[in-house]
Amino acid sequence: MSVSFEVYRGGKDGRIVADTTTRTLQPNEAYIETTHSGLCGTDEHFVTSGQVLGHEGVGIVRQIGSLVSTVKVGDRVGFGYIRQVCGACDNCATGWDQFCRRCRRYGETDLDLGSFSHGVVWDADCLFPIPEGYTSEHAAPMLCAGGSVWNCLLSFGARPPQRVGVMGIGGLGHLAIKLAAAMGYEVVALSRSEEKRADALAYGASEFHVWDGEAVPLRLKHLLLCGSMATDYAALIPLMDTGSIIYPLTVAFEPAAVPILEMGLAGICIQGVRVSSRTRLRELLVFAANQHITPTVVSFPLTVEGVERALSELRAGNIHYRAVLVREPSQ
Amino acid sequence: MSVSFEVYRGGKDGRIVADTTTRTLQPNEAYIETTHSGLCGTDEHFVTSGQVLGHEGVGIVRQIGSLVSTVKVGDRVGFGYIRQVCGACDNCATGWDQFCRRCRRYGETDLDLGSFSHGVVWDADCLFPIPEGYTSEHAAPMLCAGGSVWNCLLSFGARPPQRVGVMGIGGLGHLAIKLAAAMGYEVVALSRSEEKRADALAYGASEFHVWDGEAVPLRLKHLLLCGSMATDYAALIPLMDTGSIIYPLTVAFEPAAVPILEMGLAGICIQGVRVSSRTRLRELLVFAANQHITPTVVSFPLTVEGVERALSELRAGNIHYRAVLVREPSQ
Repeated sequence: MSVSFEVYRGGKDGRIVADTTTRTLQPNEAYIETTHSGLCGTDEHFVTSGQVLGHEGVGIVRQIGSLVSTVKVGDRVGFGYIRQVCGACDNCATGWDQFCRRCRRYGETDLDLGSFSHGVVWDADCLFPIPEGYTSEHAAPMLCAGGSVWNCLLSFGARPPQRVGVMGIGGLGHLAIKLAAAMGYEVVALSRSEEKRADALAYGASEFHVWDGEAVPLRLKHLLLCGSMATDYAALIPLMDTGSIIYPLTVAFEPAAVPILEMGLAGICIQGVRVSSRTRLRELLVFAANQHITPTVVSFPLTVEGVERALSELRAGNIHYRAVLVREPSQ
Repeated sequence: MSVSFEVYRGGKDGRIVADTTTRTLQPNEAYIETTHSGLCGTDEHFVTSGQVLGHEGVGIVRQIGSLVSTVKVGDRVGFGYIRQVCGACDNCATGWDQFCRRCRRYGETDLDLGSFSHGVVWDADCLFPIPEGYTSEHAAPMLCAGGSVWNCLLSFGARPPQRVGVMGIGGLGHLAIKLAAAMGYEVVALSRSEEKRADALAYGASEFHVWDGEAVPLRLKHLLLCGSMATDYAALIPLMDTGSIIYPLTVAFEPAAVPILEMGLAGICIQGVRVSSRTRLRELLVFAANQHITPTVVSFPLTVEGVERALSELRAGNIHYRAVLVREPSQ
C-alpha cells in the first residue's frame, strides 16, 4: 500500500520548500491526511535543515495497515513529537516513552515526515484521538506546547493549590496559565513587560508581575520557564519557595550557570523536561475538552506562503499566542 | 540556670582557639555535655571565622529547662546542623525543617555553639536520641554526613533496586554506599583512582568504576555527588538513566555550567539538597542501629591539639573515612 503526499521542508536558505514524499504503509502504520499544524518556536531551529517541519499535527486517518486496531479510517487524530515507540523498554514502561530507546523521533531519523504537510505516515500507537467537539485548530497546539506544560504540572508531584509560576507568556506560557488555573493552582504570571497583563489575568493567573531579575520573594513552588530567552538561574532563586522545582522549557543550547549551593540551601530542584509521554497527551486532550480549555490561536493557510508568513510573524513576536496552519481536508 | 563550658573556635589565623561560653538555659533548652564530634569537610570553610566549629555532636544531657519533656538528664543524644526550629512554618510542617524560617542555624546567628566543645545549649526539640547499643563514636558522623546522604535516598522517590551512583568515596560517600546497599539499591561507586576499590566493594557497592570524565552508559537512576571537587555536569549526563536525579552534596561556591538542554533530552533532574530534616535523622539512627550500619571512623582527642591534628589529616586526604573527636564525659 503506497501513498504520496505533499510536505514542506525548511530549505537551505531558510525558505520553505514544497516537496512530495511517497511511503509504503507498514502493518502498524496509518496514513493521516494533515488538516492542521501548530507552529512551534523549535521549528525555527530546523528552518534551514532540509527536513520536513512541524510536530503539532491533527488530521484524518485515510488508510491503515493490516495490524492497526486502535484507530480506523475517518478518525480525527493528533500526532506530535513521538512517531514510534517500542512500548517495551524501561522508558516506555515507566511513563517516559517520549524518550523511548527505539523511538525514531521527528528530525532524528525521519526527515520526510512532519505536520507541515498534506499527510504523514505514522505508527498507529503514537496517534491520539481528538475528543468530539474539540476543534482540530485547538487540538494542534496541545500536541507539543500543551503537552510540555501539562507534563510539568502532572509528572513531578505538583498539586493544587500550590503556587505555580509561569515565566514568559507566549505559546507555552499562555497554555500553562490556562491549564494550571483549571487545575486549581495559584498561578503567578511573570513577563518582561506590562503588555501581557490583561491576557494573563483573563487566562486565569491570580497574579501578574513585570519581572526583570529583581529578588522578589514570590514563594513559587513550581516555575515553568516558557520564554525564549537564556535564563539567569541565580536571579530565579529568590522567587522560589523551599523545596520547589524549576522546569526549563526554554530551548537553550548553551550550558547555563546554575548556583548549585543556593539551590541546596533551599532544596530547589531543576527538572529537565521535554514534551510529554503518550499517556499525558491523551489525558491532556480529554482534560482540555472536558474543561473547555483552548489555546488562543491565529490561523494561517497550510501552504508554502502560509508557513512563511506564520514564521515571519512568529519572529516578529506578533503571534498571540499560537499560530496554527490550516487546510481543508480533501474529502 | 546558668552553665559554662569550653568551646573550640576557628581563629583568625586558622588555628584552633579554646574559649569558654556561658549560657542561661531557656525553658525548652537542654545543656548537653559533648563527648563526641564528627569532623566535616565544611568545618574547614569556617576555620578562620571565629565561630565555634562542629555540627556532628553526641553527648549526654546534664541539665534541662522547665518545659523540656522529650529528653531527660542522663540521656545520650545527638545534635547536628539544626539548633532550633519553630515547628510551625510551612517548612517545618512539610518535612523541610532544616530550612525552618525561624531556625537559628549553627554558623548563622549563634557563633558560640558547636560540637567542637565540652558542651552545648540546644533546643530540646532538635536533639536526637541515640539508640541503645549504637556507639556515640558511630552516631556522630550520622548527624551531618549520614543524614545528608540518607535524605537523598529517602526523600525524592528513590526505591530499590534502582541503580544508585556514589561519586567520591570519602566521609559522605562511604556512608552512602553502606546505607544504599543496606536498603537494597544496586550501588555503583565511582572514584578518580583505584585506591578505594576494595573498600567500596566491601561496604556494599556492586560495581566500582575509576572515572575521570569518560562517557560511560552506567544508567544510574540516582547519583550522589559526594566528592570535594567542582563538578563537570556535562560529563555526568552520559552516566545517567532517563528520568534520573543528580544530588550535589559537594559544597561548591561558584555556579556550575549545567547543560540544561541535555538534561531535558533525558528527563534528568538536579535536586538541590542540604543536610536532612529532624524526622530523617531520627529514622537514620534507628535504621543504622537496627541494620548495624556504622561509619568507618578514625578517632582523635577532643582537644585543641586533637582538632588541629584531625583537620591536618583531613586536608592531607588521610582520613578513611570520617574523623571523630572523642572525650571522656566528666561523670
